Amino acid sequence: MMNNDSLKTISGVLSGAERILLFPHINMDGDALGSAAALCHVLRRMGREAFVLLEDKIPDNLAFLDRGYCTFDADRIGEPDLCVCVDCGDAGRFPKRREAFMRGKTTMCIDHHATSDPFCRYNLIDPGACATGELIYKVICAMGQEIDRETGEALFAAITTDSGNFQYSNTTKETHEIVASLYDSGLDANGVSVKIYETVRLEKLKIRARVLENITLYGGGRLCIGFVTQEMLKETGALMEETEGVVAELRSIDGVQIAVFIKEEEERLCKVSLRAKSVGDVAEIAAAFNGGGHKKAAGCTLHCTLREAEEKMRAAALENLERYDK
Amino acid sequence: MMNNDSLKTISGVLSGAERILLFPHINMDGDALGSAAALCHVLRRMGREAFVLLEDKIPDNLAFLDRGYCTFDADRIGEPDLCVCVDCGDAGRFPKRREAFMRGKTTMCIDHHATSDPFCRYNLIDPGACATGELIYKVICAMGQEIDRETGEALFAAITTDSGNFQYSNTTKETHEIVASLYDSGLDANGVSVKIYETVRLEKLKIRARVLENITLYGGGRLCIGFVTQEMLKETGALMEETEGVVAELRSIDGVQIAVFIKEEEERLCKVSLRAKSVGDVAEIAAAFNGGGHKKAAGCTLHCTLREAEEKMRAAALENLERYDK
Repeated sequence: MMNNDSLKTISGVLSGAERILLFPHINMDGDALGSAAALCHVLRRMGREAFVLLEDKIPDNLAFLDRGYCTFDADRIGEPDLCVCVDCGDAGRFPKRREAFMRGKTTMCIDHHATSDPFCRYNLIDPGACATGELIYKVICAMGQEIDRETGEALFAAITTDSGNFQYSNTTKETHEIVASLYDSGLDANGVSVKIYETVRLEKLKIRARVLENITLYGGGRLCIGFVTQEMLKETGALMEETEGVVAELRSIDGVQIAVFIKEEEERLCKVSLRAKSVGDVAEIAAAFNGGGHKKAAGCTLHCTLREAEEKMRAAALENLERYDK
Repeated sequence: MMNNDSLKTISGVLSGAERILLFPHINMDGDALGSAAALCHVLRRMGREAFVLLEDKIPDNLAFLDRGYCTFDADRIGEPDLCVCVDCGDAGRFPKRREAFMRGKTTMCIDHHATSDPFCRYNLIDPGACATGELIYKVICAMGQEIDRETGEALFAAITTDSGNFQYSNTTKETHEIVASLYDSGLDANGVSVKIYETVRLEKLKIRARVLENITLYGGGRLCIGFVTQEMLKETGALMEETEGVVAELRSIDGVQIAVFIKEEEERLCKVSLRAKSVGDVAEIAAAFNGGGHKKAAGCTLHCTLREAEEKMRAAALENLERYDK
């Protein structure tokens, strides 16, 4: 087992620090920023000097979480007593801030990813938590601090996004118990939800529509392959990152067991996302192309044209389905 | 206030009946069928003769909820002691079963719609519940019955669908507390979620993509108008009902305050769905065209061509936005 510290130790170290810098991972999501914002808010309320140090832009739909917490200035706090990486357990997840992180007199990791190693001086890594927000909730309680409305809304943002709105299998009884208790803060969960989910760029809707219009089913409807090209992005004005999550929509089609989504990054460079429903093991498919991931969600990179990538994925996925059908 | 009965009375009447017929509303959703299935299962486990009487087909994605409970035969139970309408409080919501309902020796209504009147002999109508599933949960507990896994999954289906996966403003602390306790049944929430949400017809995805490809923004991006024609349906093989919910996607666009979705039912018959985000009152727009609804969700019917309907809605919505901006 990992070298984890107790909630008592973690909350004690946090309470004892005067100047704290928090590090959510790059390409931050609702859990990374919501968790960091909640902890930063509580630490400031306790009279501490605390900031969330970033290296990339906050996505528009999460901007409401930053109430003056975030900075791009690694020297914003002269000499931090404590640097905490939040929702990540590997310095590779904050590459441009690695040096700033190591400047902390001590370091801490609060994360729920199973792949995280306890590389910090203090570690709270719990893969059983559906979101790092759950762990931050426990840490705040262990510090004896109240969950006010702002904290409650940041933690709700963290938990609802990482649990797939309480639909993913990482959601537990405790998830719902924690959220129930967040309601005591006066939480406007629907308000948070509208901010997160109802500020979709028109270009994003357009590119997703284009992807869905061009999908193809194979193997009697058990395999779905979709793709996005640089030309499609140009025509719709969308960004590549705005196709994220569309592979889940491909998998949601009735009868589809494996969904493949191919992103043409360059003329001979394709990134592939793979998802399986009940049958099939997409980690195997990805591994055959030097990729990786889990049984139901994996990815790989192919150095070939889009058409070649489609053909390779089609053959590999159909073979996988056939094998697992037996 | 309404003439409501206590949980004690409701559970007592249910426990005292031998032959019970349950009536979910037409166009049943997860809450109507999940609630009826859960109650039917528990009543049978108690040794009662219980059936869920239907008048329309169960949607494919909800078929897993029917484990031999549903019947289309109004005489399946000779003389029911008790007829219970579930998730509806008006005989107009089960029009072809009205007579069968009235044949019950006594009648009961369990519902959470604010518009429901207590028209039955016994009534449990609570608009504070996010789903009828919450009320069925309380009734089952009041009967002193255990929530087994099957009951837990049916109630989870009911609650998650009617609360918009815990994102709508009807979701409360109690909603999460109830769901937390459902987890004690061994509930596979993700399994239920996959069944409900990951069996989308390909034709449905295609028609939604077509709609999104053809939307137009007006008023500096504050108004979004989308439409579906009979020709679009023919080309994609989709059903008109498969465009349900797409208006919410139009509203989700960043900056959009009012979303209008126009369904060309016939050459000169258009049905219009209206949604508002923060600004605007779409009930007013609908009312001006003899429609109705709420401030943030309304609808109306226009006897004109699609192009004329678009023009009328554009003018009315822009006027509404301008007025509410002041």
